[in-house]
Amino acid sequence: MVFENKDILELLERYRVIWAISHATSVLHWDSETYMPKNGIMERSVAIGELSVLSQKLLLDEKLVSLVEKLDGLEDLNDYEKGVVRVLKRNIRIMKALPPELVRELAKTAQEARPYWKTAKEKNDFNIFKPYLEKIVELEKKVVEYLGYEEHPYDALLDFYEEGLLTRDVDMMFSKLEPEIRAVLEKVLENDYYPQKHPLEDVKYDVDAMRKVNMEILKLLKYPFESGRLDESAHPFTIHMGLKDVRITTRYEGYDFKRSLLGTIHEFGHALYELQIDERLMMTPIATGVSLGIHESQSRFWENMLGRSRAFTEATYELLKKYLPFLKDYSPEEVYRYFNTVRPSFIRTEADEVTYNIHILLRFKLEKLLITGEISASDVADLWNDEMERLLGIRPKTYSEGVLQDIHWSQGSIGYFPTYTIGTLVAAQIRYHMVNELGSIEELIFNGDYDAIKNYLRDKIHKWGSTYPPKELLKRSFGEEFDPTYFTRYLREKYLS
Amino acid sequence: MVFENKDILELLERYRVIWAISHATSVLHWDSETYMPKNGIMERSVAIGELSVLSQKLLLDEKLVSLVEKLDGLEDLNDYEKGVVRVLKRNIRIMKALPPELVRELAKTAQEARPYWKTAKEKNDFNIFKPYLEKIVELEKKVVEYLGYEEHPYDALLDFYEEGLLTRDVDMMFSKLEPEIRAVLEKVLENDYYPQKHPLEDVKYDVDAMRKVNMEILKLLKYPFESGRLDESAHPFTIHMGLKDVRITTRYEGYDFKRSLLGTIHEFGHALYELQIDERLMMTPIATGVSLGIHESQSRFWENMLGRSRAFTEATYELLKKYLPFLKDYSPEEVYRYFNTVRPSFIRTEADEVTYNIHILLRFKLEKLLITGEISASDVADLWNDEMERLLGIRPKTYSEGVLQDIHWSQGSIGYFPTYTIGTLVAAQIRYHMVNELGSIEELIFNGDYDAIKNYLRDKIHKWGSTYPPKELLKRSFGEEFDPTYFTRYLREKYLS
Repeated sequence: MVFENKDILELLERYRVIWAISHATSVLHWDSETYMPKNGIMERSVAIGELSVLSQKLLLDEKLVSLVEKLDGLEDLNDYEKGVVRVLKRNIRIMKALPPELVRELAKTAQEARPYWKTAKEKNDFNIFKPYLEKIVELEKKVVEYLGYEEHPYDALLDFYEEGLLTRDVDMMFSKLEPEIRAVLEKVLENDYYPQKHPLEDVKYDVDAMRKVNMEILKLLKYPFESGRLDESAHPFTIHMGLKDVRITTRYEGYDFKRSLLGTIHEFGHALYELQIDERLMMTPIATGVSLGIHESQSRFWENMLGRSRAFTEATYELLKKYLPFLKDYSPEEVYRYFNTVRPSFIRTEADEVTYNIHILLRFKLEKLLITGEISASDVADLWNDEMERLLGIRPKTYSEGVLQDIHWSQGSIGYFPTYTIGTLVAAQIRYHMVNELGSIEELIFNGDYDAIKNYLRDKIHKWGSTYPPKELLKRSFGEEFDPTYFTRYLREKYLS
Repeated sequence: MVFENKDILELLERYRVIWAISHATSVLHWDSETYMPKNGIMERSVAIGELSVLSQKLLLDEKLVSLVEKLDGLEDLNDYEKGVVRVLKRNIRIMKALPPELVRELAKTAQEARPYWKTAKEKNDFNIFKPYLEKIVELEKKVVEYLGYEEHPYDALLDFYEEGLLTRDVDMMFSKLEPEIRAVLEKVLENDYYPQKHPLEDVKYDVDAMRKVNMEILKLLKYPFESGRLDESAHPFTIHMGLKDVRITTRYEGYDFKRSLLGTIHEFGHALYELQIDERLMMTPIATGVSLGIHESQSRFWENMLGRSRAFTEATYELLKKYLPFLKDYSPEEVYRYFNTVRPSFIRTEADEVTYNIHILLRFKLEKLLITGEISASDVADLWNDEMERLLGIRPKTYSEGVLQDIHWSQGSIGYFPTYTIGTLVAAQIRYHMVNELGSIEELIFNGDYDAIKNYLRDKIHKWGSTYPPKELLKRSFGEEFDPTYFTRYLREKYLS
């Protein structure tokens, strides 16, 4: 038995209805993005709002809270039990700290802001969005005060998305990353092996054929369709209803097929994390990935370390060509180069492995300045462009391809972006240790032995769910702290050798 | 404003979270039957169970109950407000009357019984199902005692499914129906116009083509796809997430295309009821069809009065032939006869308009005897066959095509079947009054003027939601009581003239 303590068992019993609400809410979100008829949105929004308030109420239920308090710090508990207490305590702390009016105002502002952000982006007019960004920053500053912090105000927001992450961790990370990335980028651009632009980016594909490609690739990776689905949505995502129902989506732009393919593999990585959590944790507070950063490490591992590897393009070339006949004019090597173009570009979501984290660095810098009050929302648009020019040597001509490109700020998500870089870097750290233990990953990929990779990830990361906080998980599984140098080493090996 | 009373407004405010849970539960049910991956079932069942208990708890919340008690009987309220109080009072009464352990045991027994019923049906072995049926009947007898009744124990179960329906209403109804149906059936079988069997029943169709037929027919009927969907499921159903999201499903057996087509039109009728409810009732307890019987009157109206009419087969013949090319060997008249075969048969769901209600009469008789204890579960299998022989002159050779054919009893649904006949009969009553007001329906159908029909149904039935109880709704809308003779007159006119 994983859970034995009497109070823990009572706690889990009481928690189950909260789990049920989160299960239902996940299905509602999935449905909203995939199959819901358009007019359903109004009632759907009310329902999700009501369920969210209800769930908070149940989490702050006196008996549940006092059980958590009673169990907190008890040495008698096993690691899973301690994980349950840690996660619930953290959720209760956050919920208790934030006044409901503030949460409501933030949700309301975000809802109002969204269409204005969209219009601003469409019209390339930052002023349309500016007052909302100002309001959101003001509210986030309040969130910071209520949540509290020890060293830096931005810590409060970072921790919200990535348990235990500090501003100085991110500062340290980028201080190592920035010069390395610049050095690699410079050399890649000098060389002509990894092209800045590849003709396949403009080639159109048949959407039905591409659907089949994605299905075939998921079958190759043994995505368990009896516990998941692939659907289509405007923005690809992964969502778990539970350990036995984890769904992914993709999209079809109709050209540049690697976007849809690598996007699907990215979501597969997220899904696999949830699917490989220990079944015995089912329906408990620790039955989900522990943080956004660790989650992103899984999606990036599959997308980058696997999907963008030479072994993968070689192993899947015939399959791809079967459905995408235009590939007959390109060798596997050419497909590999197409998957790995490198260039300074404006749009984060289209960035390559080398430049991607520079986009995050830019956002991290601006967010810190906004939260400390060193700059105001009205400064951010032009600062963005200056910083972009300094970092990547290119200057956006429009706000749409600059400060207005991401949805995150309009949703009130400040402090979220760094988790993308954490994920990318942790993926490289995992890769290093995996190679040490399993030997060449390229060989495993080429032989289609995905099980070895999946089992490794299960044992090191997945099966634990949220039992350990992110930093502790890495230490336990790899005997060391989070270390950004694995990523820079990976970049050098891949792009400069 | 529809709702003005201060206490009503507070009541609706408090009710909204209960509505949200029912919204979510509907989406969960829809998903379970359409897209959920197979392994999701276990977590899904737990979630639905938890939400159902939570919803009951919230409904029995002290403040909500005392508001309902305070408002009950207040003459100051308008009809909508009175409807809200009536519906909530009724739900609270039922929930308070039934001990939670009994509800749980019934749910548990039903869940356990289902696979045994399925196996029994597959193996044609009543004994496999018998102990579960015995248990279910015993539990239903307890339900009767807890719910209470004035005249007949079966009343308690009838009212559960059809507010205000009494055993003597159903007795009266069938006493008028039975001889009439027998007389009509005898003459139809003597004549050879409506065939007992039609060659089109055996003709296979292309499933993709049939999907298009159903979509085209729904477009013809102006099913609003911006507020609904057509999906596929093992058993067709309609489900409403709210007034702006009402979805239907159908199925494709691959032959006998009228089943899929008329099934789709049937569900369209259910959906239209929910879709035409007054928007101002949104998210309140009266924002749904008032009863199973009235709901079935809407589905039967569209399936029988419209789908099986000569005008409809004539109006849609070219469309059908376009997708189902085998129809070129049959005239519209032949399609009409195919849609209206009449024969004594064993399976209720495949029965025609003439014999259908005889199948219900048989179940009604047996259920009454089971609930009063005049017979036991072990008697019911052979009594079924005897009664079938007496009523329709044919004797099932297997239990699978006799007592084991329906899922209802295995689900603990006793008292449900009569609502099917109520629906069929009310449809004929509505048809009569509609003709009086709008003139020939056949002409409207032939001209594709479905709006006139839809507007009539909206004003007489749909827009009210559950504002009035079923009997009162009929009286208000048609100035008379429920009257089964409209149906027998309709049968005579259609089948004997």
